[in-house]
Amino acid sequence: PNQLLDAIGTTIFTVMSALAVQHGAINLGQGFPDTDGPADIIDAAANALRDGRNQYPPLAGVPELRQAVAAANDRFYGIKADPGTDIIVTSGATEAITACLMALLDPGDEVVLIEPLYDTYLPVVKLLGAVPRLVRLNPPDWVLPRADLEAAFGPRTKLLLLNSPMNPTGKVFSADELGFIAGLLARHDAYAVCDEVYEHLIFDGAKHIPLMSLPRMRERCARIGSAGKTFSLTGWKVGYITAPRHLAAIIARAHQNLTFTTPPNLQRAVAVGLAKDDAYFEGLAADLAAKRDCLSAGLSAIGFQVLPTAGSYFVTADFSPLDFAGDDTAFCRQITEHAGVAAIPVSAFYAGEAPRHYARFAFCKRDDVLDEAISRLSAHF
Amino acid sequence: PNQLLDAIGTTIFTVMSALAVQHGAINLGQGFPDTDGPADIIDAAANALRDGRNQYPPLAGVPELRQAVAAANDRFYGIKADPGTDIIVTSGATEAITACLMALLDPGDEVVLIEPLYDTYLPVVKLLGAVPRLVRLNPPDWVLPRADLEAAFGPRTKLLLLNSPMNPTGKVFSADELGFIAGLLARHDAYAVCDEVYEHLIFDGAKHIPLMSLPRMRERCARIGSAGKTFSLTGWKVGYITAPRHLAAIIARAHQNLTFTTPPNLQRAVAVGLAKDDAYFEGLAADLAAKRDCLSAGLSAIGFQVLPTAGSYFVTADFSPLDFAGDDTAFCRQITEHAGVAAIPVSAFYAGEAPRHYARFAFCKRDDVLDEAISRLSAHF
Ligand SMILES: CSCCC(=O)C(=O)O
Ligand SMILES: CSCCC(=O)C(=O)O
Repeated sequence: PNQLLDAIGTTIFTVMSALAVQHGAINLGQGFPDTDGPADIIDAAANALRDGRNQYPPLAGVPELRQAVAAANDRFYGIKADPGTDIIVTSGATEAITACLMALLDPGDEVVLIEPLYDTYLPVVKLLGAVPRLVRLNPPDWVLPRADLEAAFGPRTKLLLLNSPMNPTGKVFSADELGFIAGLLARHDAYAVCDEVYEHLIFDGAKHIPLMSLPRMRERCARIGSAGKTFSLTGWKVGYITAPRHLAAIIARAHQNLTFTTPPNLQRAVAVGLAKDDAYFEGLAADLAAKRDCLSAGLSAIGFQVLPTAGSYFVTADFSPLDFAGDDTAFCRQITEHAGVAAIPVSAFYAGEAPRHYARFAFCKRDDVLDEAISRLSAHF
Repeated sequence: PNQLLDAIGTTIFTVMSALAVQHGAINLGQGFPDTDGPADIIDAAANALRDGRNQYPPLAGVPELRQAVAAANDRFYGIKADPGTDIIVTSGATEAITACLMALLDPGDEVVLIEPLYDTYLPVVKLLGAVPRLVRLNPPDWVLPRADLEAAFGPRTKLLLLNSPMNPTGKVFSADELGFIAGLLARHDAYAVCDEVYEHLIFDGAKHIPLMSLPRMRERCARIGSAGKTFSLTGWKVGYITAPRHLAAIIARAHQNLTFTTPPNLQRAVAVGLAKDDAYFEGLAADLAAKRDCLSAGLSAIGFQVLPTAGSYFVTADFSPLDFAGDDTAFCRQITEHAGVAAIPVSAFYAGEAPRHYARFAFCKRDDVLDEAISRLSAHF
């Protein structure tokens, strides 16, 4: 069997979800809401099953959804995209990321990655024979270390993989940071694969800025969105890529070898979702911001030092003020098994040496569930 | 961009389907039925959307479907599989094939492939840095050239990719051929990835024999099935892999980097489908056999020399008796544009030099559509 895959473990999200089930713990580990998304989108998906379009849709996605993604690009960010050539629908953002990496990388190419990082990035880069160059944001402020980033770019750099809003940190890259990154990409003639699955989960009046929306970045970026995250339907596994036409054509060839296409009824329902009014998107973010506040306050009251979160489903919390001797993996197991609340050890988002005193908690849960989690943790510590 | 993907074209199925749409041609190219699968399966999928299970299902698939796949393995072939450890659900058989190759191959490993071959096999093998060794079945009888196959195996052989029933040839590997293959796998300590998506589309009382069902092959094979093909719902993109536990664990790690998981409502509906009675599976095969006969007779009457098909959606037809000067690609374009019937040039299933006088026609279409296709072709020639 493949040595790289043999060496990596089962994804931490699955491991902790299984442990949560085993111990009847509230699952604040894996990032998924515990209520379903909008009923009208679900109804659209159910209705679309019944009108005879259950055979292969087009490779790049159904026209309705490609148009809806193009329209959303323009509406939210002023990004112009041709639905016929610039949009590829994928079976979730995980496939989108893998397809973009597969399409852009040749063996030996260097890829700049920013730690802490999502757990599929590094294995896929390595499986493709590319060479990762890791740059690290340091807690607790997660500021971009510009000199380090600059040093990670070199003559073999093919692309940067950028995740904003960022998992697990909740960091939203600033206009200034993005401008700096754009300068590096232009200087090194490199691409960016932009994992923006949390683009609409952004709080406190902050605005998500796609790197692609910066001057001269339209041609250098492949931007990835997620219906699962945008409509609280994570099981649907519908993602979408916006890229310049010449890259989209190659990404489509990767996609044809990965899944070829994505269920048409779900695609059509997501198109309905993307046409929702501003109130939907604002409400989604406001609800999540309130949940973040609730969970953060509760964790703080228990004694955690909670880091700020500007976007995503997650807060990172330093548990070192608490009475616990052990690393983050031990801590997350401990609270799952004995407090009845699951979380994710932040060291799982690092390739090598890592901070070992942070746990990531998902707040995309019902208010009563968050309250119960807090009271369980309070009782435990 | 990746040089390999840059060099391959858009999949021939998409190219010919687009040309068919452009010219209002009947699409006997890409293999998909033109009527939907069973209404009860579609209803199950619609109903499953509405009971609050729209978030991430387990990585390896929902328990219902893993159990159903295990039960089908036993019912149809006497293959025993533990649903908890041996079954991985994927977002279609394309993902399943890629996941198996990714899980089993290291760079430099050799892979034995049998031409004519499906168009994702070779690019994926190459993208993974593995080395293809091609063995060719020769038309019109497509018999396995045993000495060639034996010669293709060597000390670096990691696996054989076997497609039976076979696309595009309609060949069903015989017990004798499979026994020979099993001997080679055992002798060379190699695996087989078995693309058996057409397992239930098999005619004339022939029986599909999974290589996995042969003595000592249970531990060497990863067997791939397709809900799209088995239930005439090709757009759903639900596939499933049965493998020995130690391989399934690695395949799951590939899957977590490709799509992570597959829509739960579709999985649950496919579980309903796999529990259907024998009449369903026999009816599916009988209907298709009748369509094969209808199309084959019509093509023969026009002057094509039609090759026998024992399984799959496809007949291969030699057009050289007809009045046409040009290769198979030109022929397929010609009939799409000028006769109003699309087909696939068989040379698209070859890596290098290829026979150039065969077209592949899909017969998984309504009877009136097949009749109309035949009358259009009759009028043209
Ligand atoms: C695909 S399972 C992981 C979900 C997620 O993005 C997370 O929890 O970080
Ligand atoms: C995934 S599109 C191709 C469908 C098919 O298997 C074929 O036409 O051969």
